[in-house]
Amino acid sequence: MRPTRLDTARIRAARQVIDPAFLDTPLYRCDALDPVLGCAVSVKLETANPVRSFKGRGTELVASRLADHGPGAVVCASAGNLGQALAWSARDRGLDVTVVASRFATAAKVDRIRALGARLELVDGDHEAARERAAAIARHDGSRLLEDSLDIETCEGAATIGLELVAQQTAVPAYDAVLIALGGGALATGVGHVLKALAPGVEVICVQPRGAPALTLSWRARRVVSTESADTIADGVAGRHPIPAVLDDLLLVADDAVLVEESSITAGMRLLLHHAGLVVEPSAALGIAAILEDRDRFAGRHVVTIVCGSNVDMTAYHRWTGTALTPRQDARPRL
Amino acid sequence: MRPTRLDTARIRAARQVIDPAFLDTPLYRCDALDPVLGCAVSVKLETANPVRSFKGRGTELVASRLADHGPGAVVCASAGNLGQALAWSARDRGLDVTVVASRFATAAKVDRIRALGARLELVDGDHEAARERAAAIARHDGSRLLEDSLDIETCEGAATIGLELVAQQTAVPAYDAVLIALGGGALATGVGHVLKALAPGVEVICVQPRGAPALTLSWRARRVVSTESADTIADGVAGRHPIPAVLDDLLLVADDAVLVEESSITAGMRLLLHHAGLVVEPSAALGIAAILEDRDRFAGRHVVTIVCGSNVDMTAYHRWTGTALTPRQDARPRL
Repeated sequence: MRPTRLDTARIRAARQVIDPAFLDTPLYRCDALDPVLGCAVSVKLETANPVRSFKGRGTELVASRLADHGPGAVVCASAGNLGQALAWSARDRGLDVTVVASRFATAAKVDRIRALGARLELVDGDHEAARERAAAIARHDGSRLLEDSLDIETCEGAATIGLELVAQQTAVPAYDAVLIALGGGALATGVGHVLKALAPGVEVICVQPRGAPALTLSWRARRVVSTESADTIADGVAGRHPIPAVLDDLLLVADDAVLVEESSITAGMRLLLHHAGLVVEPSAALGIAAILEDRDRFAGRHVVTIVCGSNVDMTAYHRWTGTALTPRQDARPRL
Repeated sequence: MRPTRLDTARIRAARQVIDPAFLDTPLYRCDALDPVLGCAVSVKLETANPVRSFKGRGTELVASRLADHGPGAVVCASAGNLGQALAWSARDRGLDVTVVASRFATAAKVDRIRALGARLELVDGDHEAARERAAAIARHDGSRLLEDSLDIETCEGAATIGLELVAQQTAVPAYDAVLIALGGGALATGVGHVLKALAPGVEVICVQPRGAPALTLSWRARRVVSTESADTIADGVAGRHPIPAVLDDLLLVADDAVLVEESSITAGMRLLLHHAGLVVEPSAALGIAAILEDRDRFAGRHVVTIVCGSNVDMTAYHRWTGTALTPRQDARPRL
């Protein structure tokens, strides 16, 4: 494999820095999904931790390195999970955190960012507008700008999932493909790097919503393709402007990048609820959606899907999964 | 501590026998629950494994020891989780499994037992009727009768959770109490034994539904108290006839045993869904229910609750948690 920006030795070393609450997450077979999907499915569960997503792995690295230089300030744009994780990692390290999010961000995520003590700024427009505003804040006040997928810590943190997948491969029947949600690319390039380095026979398949296809289109075209808009319920992967360096890595580690319909995402969420007892956010159902849209490709195989987050507004969740909420439960305050 | 039937060295050795899919489960802080409950809550999550409950820890020991003597047959009574776990552990070990359950058992549990290839026998009456029938089958055909909580493997398996709680205590702010669902007593005596041996300062609090209080009443009276009936949605802990040897152990390791209302159990399930994103079966919400019923006792403390299972009929789950199901989702076949 031609070298990516990542280094396997550095990824191994990262495990020593990350709070154990984020490491060694469950990987297990979900037999109950098999007859529905026509293949053997294992889940790598990244939601059973204090921030309910894999992002803590990367923010632990960022916050720990920043704190080594004493108190400081850091700003990031986030659809919510990165910001929540950064706020968590910074809380006890004397770091000052500002998170910029779209005014349309998931309320559950934004509420948790505030509850964890970070400064929150909401901008009109989408995630790309938040990215611009975060960069402006950093330029203005000299804060460290944390850029998801570009900053190597976010990729190295995600890559520790890959180390665990390889180490845990003895614990379950061998799998031959891993399905990875594709947004900015940190998760895919991080996990993909480790798999290609240590388990090259495993197929690395990235999955993105058809309504937010920028990085997939870029991977296919082998050059950066931006989109005018992003329209998906999978808020965690709804970028429009891929980062060139991340695309370069993705070209080296991804075997495929596929696009899925919104209806497949909600169907995936429903299946994970009913057959695995898992509440997931839309981005975390992309892998199941990919199987649903191409059953022949996966028939009889053993596939791992990374369940990457569970931060979801329950009202929307019940709507997406086909359950209706009673007014009493619906009465939680919005932004 | 006076000796229980358990032995810490044997429990450590058990870890070598149990499939890693059941071990080293997440223990993590759920900050979002803190303001609601008035204390710091950590979850020990026993649902992210192939059988969605902690019972696999014990059945791995049983099945492995049985299989050492070649193909054989084993029968157990179960509300569903033990039977499902036993079927899973036996499947690839050449063991023949019969599970006896009440005709009123949770459909999701019974369906999974069948799907895992075990023979299933449904009896009229409750869990105690199933216990009698399982014993009769064993007497008749010479099968090994697996008795939950009496057979030491079921307690030793559960006790490995205790080892992890002690080992993981460095990874989170120190906790000072552990809330344990009380049914037959394997979970409470197993985890309680390890905590009293290795972390005696931690309070061991057992929680049972007021509608199925037999073992709690026995613990309080220091002698076996049976009840005429059991009436609770927490099917996993709905026994009526405590086992004397289990009560003896419980008297040595439990600091308290409390009873909670059904409405607190459903409130606990609702809180775990809305603030932790966790789908749990009623037995797994007993700990949160105990906090809800005695906030003063836990105020400002750090409490661990063992989320012991998530096998639940979704129709009932949505009813208990206050969400109404659309007819389409409701259309899954019952027994």
